[in-house]
Amino acid sequence: MIMIRVGIIGSTGYAGQELVRILLGHKEAEIRWFGSRSYVDHPYASVFQNMFQLVPDICKGEDLDKLCEEVDVVFTATPQGLCASLVSEEVLSKIKVIDLSADFRIKDVKVYEDWYGIEHKSPQFIQEAVYGLCEFNRDKIKEARLVANPGCYPTCSFLTIYPMAKAGLIDMKSVIIDAKSGTSGAGRGAKVANLYCEVNESIKAYGVASHRHTPEIEEQLTYASGQETIINFTPHLVPMNRGILVTAYANLTKDVSEEEVRALYEKAYEKEEFVRLLPEGICPETRWVEGSNYVDVNFKLDPRTNRILMMGAMDNLVKGAAGQAVQNMNLMFGLPENTGLLMPPVFP
Amino acid sequence: MIMIRVGIIGSTGYAGQELVRILLGHKEAEIRWFGSRSYVDHPYASVFQNMFQLVPDICKGEDLDKLCEEVDVVFTATPQGLCASLVSEEVLSKIKVIDLSADFRIKDVKVYEDWYGIEHKSPQFIQEAVYGLCEFNRDKIKEARLVANPGCYPTCSFLTIYPMAKAGLIDMKSVIIDAKSGTSGAGRGAKVANLYCEVNESIKAYGVASHRHTPEIEEQLTYASGQETIINFTPHLVPMNRGILVTAYANLTKDVSEEEVRALYEKAYEKEEFVRLLPEGICPETRWVEGSNYVDVNFKLDPRTNRILMMGAMDNLVKGAAGQAVQNMNLMFGLPENTGLLMPPVFP
Amino acid sequence: MIMIRVGIIGSTGYAGQELVRILLGHKEAEIRWFGSRSYVDHPYASVFQNMFQLVPDICKGEDLDKLCEEVDVVFTATPQGLCASLVSEEVLSKIKVIDLSADFRIKDVKVYEDWYGIEHKSPQFIQEAVYGLCEFNRDKIKEARLVANPGCYPTCSFLTIYPMAKAGLIDMKSVIIDAKSGTSGAGRGAKVANLYCEVNESIKAYGVASHRHTPEIEEQLTYASGQETIINFTPHLVPMNRGILVTAYANLTKDVSEEEVRALYEKAYEKEEFVRLLPEGICPETRWVEGSNYVDVNFKLDPRTNRILMMGAMDNLVKGAAGQAVQNMNLMFGLPENTGLLMPPVFP
Amino acid sequence: MIMIRVGIIGSTGYAGQELVRILLGHKEAEIRWFGSRSYVDHPYASVFQNMFQLVPDICKGEDLDKLCEEVDVVFTATPQGLCASLVSEEVLSKIKVIDLSADFRIKDVKVYEDWYGIEHKSPQFIQEAVYGLCEFNRDKIKEARLVANPGCYPTCSFLTIYPMAKAGLIDMKSVIIDAKSGTSGAGRGAKVANLYCEVNESIKAYGVASHRHTPEIEEQLTYASGQETIINFTPHLVPMNRGILVTAYANLTKDVSEEEVRALYEKAYEKEEFVRLLPEGICPETRWVEGSNYVDVNFKLDPRTNRILMMGAMDNLVKGAAGQAVQNMNLMFGLPENTGLLMPPVFP
Repeated sequence: MIMIRVGIIGSTGYAGQELVRILLGHKEAEIRWFGSRSYVDHPYASVFQNMFQLVPDICKGEDLDKLCEEVDVVFTATPQGLCASLVSEEVLSKIKVIDLSADFRIKDVKVYEDWYGIEHKSPQFIQEAVYGLCEFNRDKIKEARLVANPGCYPTCSFLTIYPMAKAGLIDMKSVIIDAKSGTSGAGRGAKVANLYCEVNESIKAYGVASHRHTPEIEEQLTYASGQETIINFTPHLVPMNRGILVTAYANLTKDVSEEEVRALYEKAYEKEEFVRLLPEGICPETRWVEGSNYVDVNFKLDPRTNRILMMGAMDNLVKGAAGQAVQNMNLMFGLPENTGLLMPPVFP
Repeated sequence: MIMIRVGIIGSTGYAGQELVRILLGHKEAEIRWFGSRSYVDHPYASVFQNMFQLVPDICKGEDLDKLCEEVDVVFTATPQGLCASLVSEEVLSKIKVIDLSADFRIKDVKVYEDWYGIEHKSPQFIQEAVYGLCEFNRDKIKEARLVANPGCYPTCSFLTIYPMAKAGLIDMKSVIIDAKSGTSGAGRGAKVANLYCEVNESIKAYGVASHRHTPEIEEQLTYASGQETIINFTPHLVPMNRGILVTAYANLTKDVSEEEVRALYEKAYEKEEFVRLLPEGICPETRWVEGSNYVDVNFKLDPRTNRILMMGAMDNLVKGAAGQAVQNMNLMFGLPENTGLLMPPVFP
Repeated sequence: MIMIRVGIIGSTGYAGQELVRILLGHKEAEIRWFGSRSYVDHPYASVFQNMFQLVPDICKGEDLDKLCEEVDVVFTATPQGLCASLVSEEVLSKIKVIDLSADFRIKDVKVYEDWYGIEHKSPQFIQEAVYGLCEFNRDKIKEARLVANPGCYPTCSFLTIYPMAKAGLIDMKSVIIDAKSGTSGAGRGAKVANLYCEVNESIKAYGVASHRHTPEIEEQLTYASGQETIINFTPHLVPMNRGILVTAYANLTKDVSEEEVRALYEKAYEKEEFVRLLPEGICPETRWVEGSNYVDVNFKLDPRTNRILMMGAMDNLVKGAAGQAVQNMNLMFGLPENTGLLMPPVFP
Repeated sequence: MIMIRVGIIGSTGYAGQELVRILLGHKEAEIRWFGSRSYVDHPYASVFQNMFQLVPDICKGEDLDKLCEEVDVVFTATPQGLCASLVSEEVLSKIKVIDLSADFRIKDVKVYEDWYGIEHKSPQFIQEAVYGLCEFNRDKIKEARLVANPGCYPTCSFLTIYPMAKAGLIDMKSVIIDAKSGTSGAGRGAKVANLYCEVNESIKAYGVASHRHTPEIEEQLTYASGQETIINFTPHLVPMNRGILVTAYANLTKDVSEEEVRALYEKAYEKEEFVRLLPEGICPETRWVEGSNYVDVNFKLDPRTNRILMMGAMDNLVKGAAGQAVQNMNLMFGLPENTGLLMPPVFP
């Protein structure tokens, strides 16, 4: 068996480290390049002591030519803009690229530049790039050279809302997504706002009416529903390490029963290993998915207000980042989609 | 100076204990009765060791006759139904009652019985009871014998939304309240679901489309707006001890500017010591109100969706329970409303 | 390949559930019996929602005869006394037993009865039982019918101190072990003391000078050192889910250098996959071992006091319970010792 | 009544902010100078939003001449070395100084320079400075111009051990102090090691055999016992905001009973309002002192090892920093020692 040779640019962030954790248990992949801007020449295990004796490698810088020789696929777990500045026809002719940043998620370059406030360095690859939500773009991903790994909030939001959007049962201008995330989503940068004593024992909204994941969610829901979707999306910071919970609200456009809606969700996800439709009455909770690639979803109709509440929970670092990226890699290399991704949730 | 003699029924729950903490710093009140069903004859400080050497008293049972002789006011920090079963004309002729349960908050006894699932034992006092949201019912509270201390979620929700509801600027059928609470709101009962390992590192919604605070919020918003209000209210459990954050969404009924809305909020709260309208762009966070009687509120208009987001943060045990109860007591006894309530928020 | 058929008595406690998590990833074992006293006839996944769609089984009671027919090995993750009341010559002639309780850890039945305050129901098997600290009793475990899986604190304490005890370099009457544990160690019983709000934002010692793991540690250190060992052992409860940290102090009996001691530790653990001697100057931290079977150890000499500080960190539910139990099972069934145990630590 | 005019240098650290919180409730003091190196010209309440509407002041820099005109006392809640570089005969002739750093705690300047690795800038004031442990140096503090506010760990350690040290009942070379602290003790600097995700769900030792509070504890215990004291002191970082727990071990030098030792502790602290000797069998826990100036202490004899375990819990930011500093201020200005310090512990 020939192992897939993997490079990770940005391996010393939280998502990068989660890629390492998952790939260590992946039977057909081997990490050959631990990229890091801040820790070049440091042993990887000195940055993440959990990897002591498991990863003997030293962190490397951004030598793209060399990288193209040594790996088959590169994951970019880096700030916005970096991947767009690295890709080229030459790179893509040699290796596959799975970008965990937002650079290739949004098809309209102007929307990207407006919301992210930076110039896109390689707009010529935007159309080619495949949005890597495996449950929906499986076939395209298999053929892709460049995959845009979805954002954490968009992944959870879309999977939570999709069946209703697709069925045309909700008003796509009425969708409100109130999301809650653990603190690993804020990254490993040294900022006062992310210190233990600032986050602990508190909850706050942030990026109100301006968070960058908004247009990404809107674009995908527009595709799914066939209607222009404009949403309110409000993320909150929760004092926990991992986990995203999405609570979404929408006005019903038709009279539907609990059973009809359940049938829709069942149909949408019955073949999906990583999307778990919970039994009636059971709300998703982030503790039940921690460390795993599962997304738990459920819903509740409220006849008093003629709305539906849709809820989803997942691990932001796994299905919301590294796990989904590996799922994409599996598809791109013709492996079973769940390879290396079957670790059960860790509780408590 | 004559001290107000205080009795607390339910002094060994979290809200009861917070009453004790606050009243220890109250210059004109003295606790004479530490009531407890579970800890009769135990020293209060053996239940809450923080009170060691501060509270020498022993917990007592529910001898109402004796209580009426020994105190001027009683706080009932007890499960639903208890206060309704205790009050009588005789009791109210002797002492004032501040009920921290929901028994007298809802004017329509049928609504109460539907949502709470119990029969109301003294409906004859419902009309007399004053809803103790001090900022709005000040004058009535001063004359009241029986005050229904508002629920934690309703207090925070109402104060957050009130100025827009009052001004008729939002569609009262479009209001969605997504609320988040620390775990002290779940009480001190020994349940698996509230164990440290079950709550820690997780977030979940609960009481979806069925939480009992829903009709209470609707009733108060209906009064404020003069329009029938039907809302979605979704509470979430957050891994922290104290704090409630409300994120509320509503459709605007008119074209308004940030400045106009700010002027409304300013006018509503400029004379209110315990409601702090934050500067533009600053979101409420529960860490900034912990341990205090303050409610921090703010809002943001979203022209993309023609909605307003309204946010409020407070300590569920203080302004959401014991602090507001003492504020009510102050009003009922002719004291300055802020007596004993000026402790600054404790951070971190 | 013939799968090992596994039964778990006490599968709905935290250690039991961790056994399930680990065994789901074990290629050569299959759980056939999910035993539970509290949840008989409930779907296992309704108790632990993380197992939804992963475990379709229903919880069963304690039918030992049936159990003996259906499984090859049983894990007892139960309160003290239960395993001792279940084992018999007949049971042991049919299946292997790995007991996660303390019933067979202590060779002197009187010591057991004194510290645990219960009568031992099957003292006749104490001598036969093998103390399942794999790193030291490997050969005996391979032959055993009944293994006493070590306690969490004893495992971490012993592995931390062993090289110095063995080498005779510390006074075995001077050993002081100050240990800190996450709250999963307190079990899943509904007790006020283990509620979120009681444990969060606090630390305390418990079982001071009386914790039941004391004689277990003393017995093993006595074997290792050849000297009677009497220790102070003080456990503390830490507001975190998982993890044990041991900080041990002992007086040096000889003048030794950092290098000499390091050589001893290296020699002791160079062939041990699950014991990681950290580089000089790096202290063990529980975050680096969470979810894994690793124990991280290190030490520091203090010439000012002529003492050595020895430190160890591990996950109390893995190497401290379920992981070690599976390690024992692997040995008992002739499998590679690390089968199913190579999951890297989960961080953050 | 003439208010004491207060200046705080370093008011934007955690200890500085706690001084603000406490002094806001102090009837006879008024903060006139909110000093800050990082936030000059920023509104104080923009740094600590809890102070919104409570503190209208703007942060100021380090203009010592002006400070001397405007205040009666200055608190220096600053890194080591700063206070020593500021004090002078001129300053001390005009204002009183309470230094929360270590600059004047250690009488032997060489010991200070060895452990802290910096040159002492004003050794001429070391002898004059009074070690501000109010319970023991009350009279000297009343006369002092310059008070060295004790370290957090030393305060808790000393009060925990003192009665035994004073009575000559423990071997002062056998003392081992294993301490645990919340994360606010690590300060508000933006460091990766103090990020939420790094501290949460973990515990570690730090400063092993090298922490700077070691010589401070040794010096005070040497005074108390009259014997040269050399200790092991090991601090640990706990995932909580506030609180210090000290677990101390020492060999008994004589045969003593529980009652005799209890009598010693009672005698030592019977007149001390802020030191609470807990009832027999009750261990100190940090949750019971949070937000207050209390130190809870207790002990247990272990006849098996002939040792005593002594335990103490306090809030590191109150009795361990700001609260004790205000206690010192009260003494220096002839006020009742408990002025402004009677807030009960906040739980949960």
